[in-house]
Amino acid sequence: MNRLYHVPLSPFCRKVRLVLAEKKIEVDLIEERYWERDPDFLRRNPAGKVPVLRIDGLAMAESQAICEYLEETHPTPALLPSDPKGRHEVRRLCAWFDDKFHHDVTSKLLYERVNKKMMGQGYPESRNVKAGATQIKHHIDYIGWLLDQRRWLAGDVMTLADFAAAAHLSCLDYISDVDWNRNTVVKDWYAKIKSRPAFRSLLADQVPGFPPPAHYSDLDF
Amino acid sequence: MNRLYHVPLSPFCRKVRLVLAEKKIEVDLIEERYWERDPDFLRRNPAGKVPVLRIDGLAMAESQAICEYLEETHPTPALLPSDPKGRHEVRRLCAWFDDKFHHDVTSKLLYERVNKKMMGQGYPESRNVKAGATQIKHHIDYIGWLLDQRRWLAGDVMTLADFAAAAHLSCLDYISDVDWNRNTVVKDWYAKIKSRPAFRSLLADQVPGFPPPAHYSDLDF
Repeated sequence: MNRLYHVPLSPFCRKVRLVLAEKKIEVDLIEERYWERDPDFLRRNPAGKVPVLRIDGLAMAESQAICEYLEETHPTPALLPSDPKGRHEVRRLCAWFDDKFHHDVTSKLLYERVNKKMMGQGYPESRNVKAGATQIKHHIDYIGWLLDQRRWLAGDVMTLADFAAAAHLSCLDYISDVDWNRNTVVKDWYAKIKSRPAFRSLLADQVPGFPPPAHYSDLDF
Repeated sequence: MNRLYHVPLSPFCRKVRLVLAEKKIEVDLIEERYWERDPDFLRRNPAGKVPVLRIDGLAMAESQAICEYLEETHPTPALLPSDPKGRHEVRRLCAWFDDKFHHDVTSKLLYERVNKKMMGQGYPESRNVKAGATQIKHHIDYIGWLLDQRRWLAGDVMTLADFAAAAHLSCLDYISDVDWNRNTVVKDWYAKIKSRPAFRSLLADQVPGFPPPAHYSDLDF
């Protein structure tokens, strides 16, 4: 059986979980407290990070590289368009969320509020939380701007870019850090992606010590 | 004519420059002081970062997404293998260097010593420089470990993974922060890649206020 070593509130793990579910690839989810640096786990991925996917006899690391592998080996449904320009736009947006959004927002809100406590690294730094709360607004505006021109983030069909974005936003929504009233177009896009069967496992996540708000798993939030 | 907006000592720009040169795609290099946030430049890339490549009527951002695009539109010479497992390994290692090595080493040495001064952000933080100097050793050991099993970083042929690694190391070599005597296998690998015609433009770079050491452009260093 395939195995995904993950933590529930990692946007990178969630992106891979969404891709696996969308492509109907069955997988056992195994929670890995990667910050404890278990030697067995470090052998699987010397970078010491999740996600790690055990599939086809390999232990694969790095979420974007994993998603590209799954796209190549399980091409249906397609999560990248077939033309190089369209593929570039999807990959650019994945990098936007996994790099810029992660730096500006996810690391400032989720990591301060949840990861620090989970890893025993003290209390949230209020300066960071404040910066993250400001910057998420600009990012929601950017998503809204994209969606004013396109049905989905990278074009007219749903792609990996939507999953990358939704993976980050869903983690932040778990801790009530997304103001869905800021932009109804963004809210409608998230409602569409949230109602997909692939999203169900994410909505069922429960992190001890951090109960999700009622709206988190509500499809009509 | 194609245009690459770049800065000379950016590992991400250098990775793209190596790919362009290896694939013999001509390009005008335009230095972009991206930290000054020129509105014209921000229109090209709202992320406000280099590299940005103007090609085929588009302004493309994000180095890995650009390299994937170039690989798809200019497949010769191939910089990704044809099998999904091999492609995953190349992409995993690109992420290793552009994410982990960048965080552990490049941001701690190059950004502290050069970027801060260039951007008027003060003096190097010695704690960071010290951490970077320690961590580069572990990374050189990891590269050496890979090369004990393979001719090139991701397997038996040269790939984008070698360019990603060499892009970071060449920036650090420009400021004499690589101890090539630590591992002769790593040194030999770097000598091989450094002697490629694609590398010439990198070796000719000159950053005002930061003259490179003599060994930087010496193929017999």
